[in-house]
Parts: sequence; C-alpha cells; structure tokens
Amino acid sequence: MIPSDPKELIDQARAGDRACLARLISRIEHRNHETKTIVELLYRYTGRAEVWGITGPPGAGKSTLVDRLLTKLRAEGKRVAVIAVDPSSPFSGGAILGDRIRMQSHTADSGVYIRSLGTRGRHGGLSHSTKEAVLALDAADFDVILVETAGVGQTELDILRLAQTVIVILVPESGDSIQVMKAGLMEIADVFAVNKSDRPEADKLVKELTLNIGLNPHDEKSWITPVCKTEANRDVGVEELLKQIHLHQEYLNRSGARVAKTRAFLREELVDILIEDLRVSLGAVFETEGGKDLLEKLLSKEIAPYEAAKVLAGQSSG
Amino acid sequence: MIPSDPKELIDQARAGDRACLARLISRIEHRNHETKTIVELLYRYTGRAEVWGITGPPGAGKSTLVDRLLTKLRAEGKRVAVIAVDPSSPFSGGAILGDRIRMQSHTADSGVYIRSLGTRGRHGGLSHSTKEAVLALDAADFDVILVETAGVGQTELDILRLAQTVIVILVPESGDSIQVMKAGLMEIADVFAVNKSDRPEADKLVKELTLNIGLNPHDEKSWITPVCKTEANRDVGVEELLKQIHLHQEYLNRSGARVAKTRAFLREELVDILIEDLRVSLGAVFETEGGKDLLEKLLSKEIAPYEAAKVLAGQSSG
Repeated sequence: MIPSDPKELIDQARAGDRACLARLISRIEHRNHETKTIVELLYRYTGRAEVWGITGPPGAGKSTLVDRLLTKLRAEGKRVAVIAVDPSSPFSGGAILGDRIRMQSHTADSGVYIRSLGTRGRHGGLSHSTKEAVLALDAADFDVILVETAGVGQTELDILRLAQTVIVILVPESGDSIQVMKAGLMEIADVFAVNKSDRPEADKLVKELTLNIGLNPHDEKSWITPVCKTEANRDVGVEELLKQIHLHQEYLNRSGARVAKTRAFLREELVDILIEDLRVSLGAVFETEGGKDLLEKLLSKEIAPYEAAKVLAGQSSG
Repeated sequence: MIPSDPKELIDQARAGDRACLARLISRIEHRNHETKTIVELLYRYTGRAEVWGITGPPGAGKSTLVDRLLTKLRAEGKRVAVIAVDPSSPFSGGAILGDRIRMQSHTADSGVYIRSLGTRGRHGGLSHSTKEAVLALDAADFDVILVETAGVGQTELDILRLAQTVIVILVPESGDSIQVMKAGLMEIADVFAVNKSDRPEADKLVKELTLNIGLNPHDEKSWITPVCKTEANRDVGVEELLKQIHLHQEYLNRSGARVAKTRAFLREELVDILIEDLRVSLGAVFETEGGKDLLEKLLSKEIAPYEAAKVLAGQSSG
C-alpha cells in the first residue's frame, strides 16, 4: 500500500520503501498543489548527500561511465541514486527513455536507485522538478546523487545550479579545446574525463585542456581542474577519475566552497519558485477578459510590450 | 555620427544606416534602462517581416544552407537579416564567433545584415534579447529574418517562440527518426531538410521522417511537414526547400495561423518581461539584510523553501 498522505509517503520512502520513493518523485514531477507540501516536509531531511553532475556531448559514453562509477561507489559501501535527464518534447513534456535500460543490472540492489526525468523543455534547462527530485533522494539517505544529462546545451550548464561537482566527459572526436570553450564547458567543469582515450588525438585533447586550465588565474589554494583519461568500456582510468571527484569533494569542505555553493543554489531555488508562481498567476490572467483585451491591444499596436507588461503586473497582483 | 538618443538612433537605423542598426541591437543586447524605451519605440514599426528559425545538430551544414537561402532570397529581391545564435558561456555571457565569418561575402550588400548573438546562457534558451533584436530588424524593414541556432538543445526549442516557420536540418549521420523524436524536433519542424543527401542512409531517413509525419493526425486543411533533400555544398535541392518555406508562409496567412502564432509570441514576450523584472527585483532583495538573513535561515533549515519564497515575495513587493 502506497500512502497518499505526503508525510506518510515521505516517512516510508525514507525507511527504504522504493515504491514510495518512486511515487514521491512522480508527485514532485507532476507539479500540483501537493508539490509545495512535499518539498517543505522533505527539506528538513536534506543537506547530507553529495550531488555530482555528469555532462558531455552525445556519444561520449556518459551512461557507461556512470555505470562504472556506480559499481565502484557501491564497492565503497555508498548508497547511490542516478537521475538521468532526458531531452523531452516541448509539447508532450515527457521523457523518452533510451539506453537507460542498460543500467537495469543494478535494479536488484537496494543501495541503488535510478530514475529518468524529462527536461520539461518549455521554460528552459534542467527543470525545477529535477532540483526537487534531488531533495527527495537526499532525504531518502542516498550518499551520492549522480545527475546525468544528455547532450550539450543549456541543460548542461544548468547542472551548475544543483551539482557540487561537475564532471565533463569528452571524447577525442568531440572536437578540440576551442569547441569545449565555445560550449562553456571549460568554466563549469570541476573534473574532466577524456573518455575513449585509446583513440588517436586523445593525448592532444588532454594536453590542450591541461594547458587551458593552467592559463586560468589560480593560487595554491585553488582547485585545479584535473583531466583524467578513461576508457569506460574497458573500465580503465575510472578508479583515478573517482579519486579526483572525491578530492574535489574534500576540497569543497576544506575551502568553505560547499556552503557558498549551497547558498547560491538555495537562492536560485527561491527565484525558481517565484518565477513558477508568476507563470501560474499570469496564465490565469490571460484567461480573463482583461488579459485577452490586453493581448489584442498589443497585437493591434495600441500598446507596446513594456507598457502592456506593467498593466499585466497590475492585473496579476490585483 | 551615431546619435545616442534612442528615437534618432531608430530613425537612422530605419533609414538604412547600418552603424545605427548595429548600435541599436547592441543596446538591446546590453539590457539597461534604455532597452525598454527602445523596444517601446520600435514596436509600432514591427509586424511585417517573416521570421524563419533554422536549427539542427552541429555539423548538419546549417551555415552553408543559410548562406544558400540568403543568396536565393536576394535574387528574389528580398532584404534579409540573419541572427546567428552562438552558444555562450554561463559565466562570461559573451558569444564566441565561429564560422560566421564565412558569411562575410555578403557584407558589401546593403540588403543583407548578419549578426551573432550569445544565448546569455544563465536563464535558459534563446535570450529575451534575441527576440527584441528581431523586433529591431523587423522595424528596419527586412523582409525575412533568419534566426540560426547552433546545436540541439533547449535553445532550438525556443525558436518556436519567435519563428513563424521552423526549418529543421538533419543529416543522415545525425541518427534515425527515433533520435529526431527524442530531441522533440518532430513537433517543432514546419519543414525538414535532410542535408548531405548524397550520403548513404539519406533516403532511409527521408522515408522514416515522412512515415512519422503521416502518422500525425491531420485533415485536408492541415500543414503536412514536407521533407526536402538538400546538398547545400553543391546548391542542390535548396530551390525546392525555399519553395516549401514560401508555401508554409502562405499557409500561415491562409489559415489564420500567423495571427495565432503572433498572439502566442506576444504573450510569451510579456511573461519574459515580467520574469526579467522579477529577477532584477529579487537580485536587489538578496543584497539587503532581510534577503541575506532569509538565505541563512534557509541554509540552517529554520525555514523551508516555499515558505521562504513567500517571505521573499513580500520583501520584494514591499
């Protein structure tokens, strides 16, 4: 029996009931009046988990690498959750499951939880739901939460806003360091993994990345983004990658950067909540006669956008 | 002499002064108190241009195809503007120019204007500035405004919110129709171009796409997304692609879909403006003692996120 009361649901999810955890995340994903209640109740139990973001271009071998990391983390005795963020359609809003199925080898393991979420593309980037699903997994006592995103784009940059450690996976074919810079990955990576590193050009990419990282201003206290060579398929180099991620987490604690990051994330969470509220209330205003009139006036150029927005703000708060 | 007064600047840009047009768009891009004034003044002159969105995965040959379309549109006597949206870094916010330089062959032509804009990644997708830059080009009397975006991601889906006709460019290597579906491209495309169609597998992709399009519910009045085969490099099939785009524009007029789209875009513009205002005012609140206290209380779990957001909303409007 899955309880419908949010508090009971959370208690049972925290006690290890997987069906309740799954239901909890679904409720967060569906975004209704209950979402707020659930998040408020969850919040007090959060703050313990490490959140790692894993990103990189399609075909870089992210899923395989995540699978390897997962196995090693389990060997360390850690409880691990994976959120795979799939691109979703702007209309249907749903996630289409792809190669995640492969990770099903872990489903019998109660220390592993794997979940796909859609990006709910309409309003940009990693959805607010993803951030709140992380809260649920944190509250459910997972030690490490891996958020894996597909492709390179806005979604990837948004990982910044929820992961303490961002791991960027590249392959020699994904281009040179100029491309990496263009995508903004140089600035978001805490650890680079050059995967499929048996291929030609891998050493060149490693060298270029290392050179570029060295050019950034830094002192002896700074974190210097390491560049790891991996072959996820053959489980080569993954141990070293994991070691570097752990070192970054230690650095976060030592330097006070963890608290600063958490503060910045919370700030963004508050902004997200208020933007969501604004969208909902504007949606309602556009259904009223006043809202419809305003749009028609804008369409006929009787009024200009910023002036109309001002009127709308009045209608929305009034 | 470039005038600093917004009204004079707009008048000269509309009279054909390229330096003034460039300055105008820069002012829109830089987002300050002047931006509102500029947009309000521009707005009355807008609504005539056709806005086409061009998107597709990296390496699909978007720039070459845009270049071909541009040349053909010029031969039709149309004035054409291109906005190339480059991925930008989440920290620096600036666009990094890439292969746009190639399009410089048109710079001597006063009927062509080409401009790169960054995505200003921080808050997701095609920036608000891009939409407002389109207004400037519309007011400056361009017949067709081509908005080209790099890569596949949120940014691409956001083209929906400003383009009347969305052209999705694919190549046989970019995967099968399942991949296309996963990226949400099936639903946003008004016209498909399968570029590099001399390559093996091109016919297979065309067939799959056509089949999938046929599966969508439609009647004799619906627009059925055509699938065009192109080889932009050799200028093959571009004529037919252009014809299909023109047909889609005629369809928009005939069906009333143009007005419906414009209404939806304007609605989004109003929402964008109010979200931008909200971000600005929240940014200010976080600098106050009250805002800082609130964050610390959230950090120490004295308060939960939705409750904190409510308090914040009070501080922001008060």
